[in-house]
Amino acid sequence: MTASEIRALFSVASRPEVVSLAGGMPNLAALPLDALSVEVADLVAREGQVALQYGSAQGVPALREQICEVMRLEGINADPNDVVVTVGSQMALDLVTRIFCDPGDVVLAEGPSYVGALGSFAAYQARVVHVAMDEHGLDPDALRDALRTLAAKGITPKFLYTIPNFHNPAGVTLAVERRTEVLEICARYGVGVVEDNPYGLLGFSGRTYPALRSMDPGVIYLGSFSKTFASGLRVGWALVPPAVRDRLVLAAESATLCPPSFNQMLVSRYLDGHDWRSQIKTFTEAYRDRRDAMLAALETYLPDGCSWTTPDGGFYVWLTVPEGVDTKAMLPRAVTARVAYASGTGFYADGLGSRQLRLSYCYPTPERITEGVRRLAGVLEAELDVMRTFGSPARLTPTPPAVSRGPQSPSPDTA
Amino acid sequence: MTASEIRALFSVASRPEVVSLAGGMPNLAALPLDALSVEVADLVAREGQVALQYGSAQGVPALREQICEVMRLEGINADPNDVVVTVGSQMALDLVTRIFCDPGDVVLAEGPSYVGALGSFAAYQARVVHVAMDEHGLDPDALRDALRTLAAKGITPKFLYTIPNFHNPAGVTLAVERRTEVLEICARYGVGVVEDNPYGLLGFSGRTYPALRSMDPGVIYLGSFSKTFASGLRVGWALVPPAVRDRLVLAAESATLCPPSFNQMLVSRYLDGHDWRSQIKTFTEAYRDRRDAMLAALETYLPDGCSWTTPDGGFYVWLTVPEGVDTKAMLPRAVTARVAYASGTGFYADGLGSRQLRLSYCYPTPERITEGVRRLAGVLEAELDVMRTFGSPARLTPTPPAVSRGPQSPSPDTA
Repeated sequence: MTASEIRALFSVASRPEVVSLAGGMPNLAALPLDALSVEVADLVAREGQVALQYGSAQGVPALREQICEVMRLEGINADPNDVVVTVGSQMALDLVTRIFCDPGDVVLAEGPSYVGALGSFAAYQARVVHVAMDEHGLDPDALRDALRTLAAKGITPKFLYTIPNFHNPAGVTLAVERRTEVLEICARYGVGVVEDNPYGLLGFSGRTYPALRSMDPGVIYLGSFSKTFASGLRVGWALVPPAVRDRLVLAAESATLCPPSFNQMLVSRYLDGHDWRSQIKTFTEAYRDRRDAMLAALETYLPDGCSWTTPDGGFYVWLTVPEGVDTKAMLPRAVTARVAYASGTGFYADGLGSRQLRLSYCYPTPERITEGVRRLAGVLEAELDVMRTFGSPARLTPTPPAVSRGPQSPSPDTA
Repeated sequence: MTASEIRALFSVASRPEVVSLAGGMPNLAALPLDALSVEVADLVAREGQVALQYGSAQGVPALREQICEVMRLEGINADPNDVVVTVGSQMALDLVTRIFCDPGDVVLAEGPSYVGALGSFAAYQARVVHVAMDEHGLDPDALRDALRTLAAKGITPKFLYTIPNFHNPAGVTLAVERRTEVLEICARYGVGVVEDNPYGLLGFSGRTYPALRSMDPGVIYLGSFSKTFASGLRVGWALVPPAVRDRLVLAAESATLCPPSFNQMLVSRYLDGHDWRSQIKTFTEAYRDRRDAMLAALETYLPDGCSWTTPDGGFYVWLTVPEGVDTKAMLPRAVTARVAYASGTGFYADGLGSRQLRLSYCYPTPERITEGVRRLAGVLEAELDVMRTFGSPARLTPTPPAVSRGPQSPSPDTA
């Protein structure tokens, strides 16, 4: 059970002596807590009767308008009536899956993909077929191959689930010139697109990529304030075509009646009264420093035979270790050496990923990141040492599963 | 679509000139907003880094302990490890349905039943079989009959969904002497029990009923702070047997990753630092005054041939109108006369309820309630007048559906 693996990791990682490069918790140190404290006090005192009351299932209208403003930064021109506010974008993803997928239906997703998406797909018994990426993101040729192979079996996937920007866990971004191609391929095969974009505004080069949704109004777009403001408020959203909206609102009503008015009104006030663009810049600068620290440490400490992605935004580096090392089997030894990571198999629905792992640089300080990577390098060296001493890696690690339900999925950094 | 009917009603009811007896919005006027404002400001200033961050899928541990204290008032002795905090108890209900029900499975529910429960059952394509109530709540004989009839067809329902206290919409309470009987009948047929108890602490006689869960640790219990504190925070919970807990936590993680830490910590502080028992007493006194106003007005204004339940707590009166009047068909005329209610068919999965309607006394002031009932009486008089003038009621209203998938369900006030 992948989700509980991740949960177990979080629990271990919470020991202070362990450097956790495992979790994806945003770094909130830069939040202006004093100003927020005043804001929330005023919200309760002046608008408490509304903020503490049930609201509409679709979400607070003023916030839905502001969400359209936020999306405009990525070229999206949206109607607030087509926005549905959810309890984090996870809820939007879960409900979209509920609406579209019956047991046995096929969903396409990058390989590797976001563990929370795989969890929702599994919850509705959808089958995931992974599509390979390279350093420019989802590979259009691999997408075409996957769709052709499925079509030959009479299967039309329900949708392509994709994280185009600063991918979790792969750390890569879909090249702009590939975006229309991906959309065209999906259109040709009659396959919808679900674009999950929690990190899009957290680019390190100052560049913002055009959303797939900005190129095709049929795309279902998922957004979140978890990384640009505060994850603990659980405010996300879906922008959906009008034909999907009513079904999504009805599903949301069945799921929670309505998202918390209180949280929505606080986000709305924050967007209205604070310089949220500067705040995102502040966050991004902190993440860039951490990314730099991680890349430098990987370069300095890791043994030969390792390779990794170079993220231009977001939270994650995807690392491939030398052949014969099993990152899941190694994890307990890493934790003993006081460093934690997320092993690669959790990001695949088909058993791949045993030679990969995800490193998060979002939460620890640069110094801790450097120390964490140094410890990880020591663990890898020890692993390789044992392999050199005792021969074949098969003695150390179980044979990787031969079965793969999807197209072969090379790690994104090897292509 | 019942949920959207209710939604449309809410929208109409929001016009200030209409007295809405339709919605179930709690009356928050008595909340100590100034004290809460100070509390929430302190929460953000001192614990913002935790409150605004992701938390565990199961919920904040301190709150889960406090929830056990709250449940102790109804005789429940629970372990905080078996409590799962959810985004309102609606989410708990939705996930419990997700876990237990496949399409076509049967669920038992009182007739009438909570519209949000019927929505979740429909979302997972579960079939609802209604069980009749009388003024003492769920009728054990009707339950036995329903289970016997189903067993004869080889069907074992997945669970009995029941609201034992101050029922929504029926306004009745399951007699204490029936509680063990209901549990025994379900146990004999191998049917689980889901106890939904949002109103249990809102009794007007000062009496608290023992929860079904206090008599049987196998019962799944759903609780909520929406009516005892603030609905807009969306904090509810499920208390489940250990065998169900891990599946529920996993489902919750798939649904929203985690409930908002911020909201949970605010509820936790409120329970810790404020006299929440007195606050509930204050709420309850206000609701009792409103109930009294409604009952007096019904007695004064309603035409002969109407009957209604006498709630001893909670928010609702269930009204049966004279034969021939269709409450759904009458609703537009009622709204024109500036009074709104929830027509009865929305509370049944099988087309019953056209002679019933739900009146909520939770939100309007006693004066408005009196005026609303007076207007409703006028609408009913006019309806009866037309019937007397033009003859058979069939000319006015469509024939009620002859089909009933469940046992016949007399309205609770006729038995």
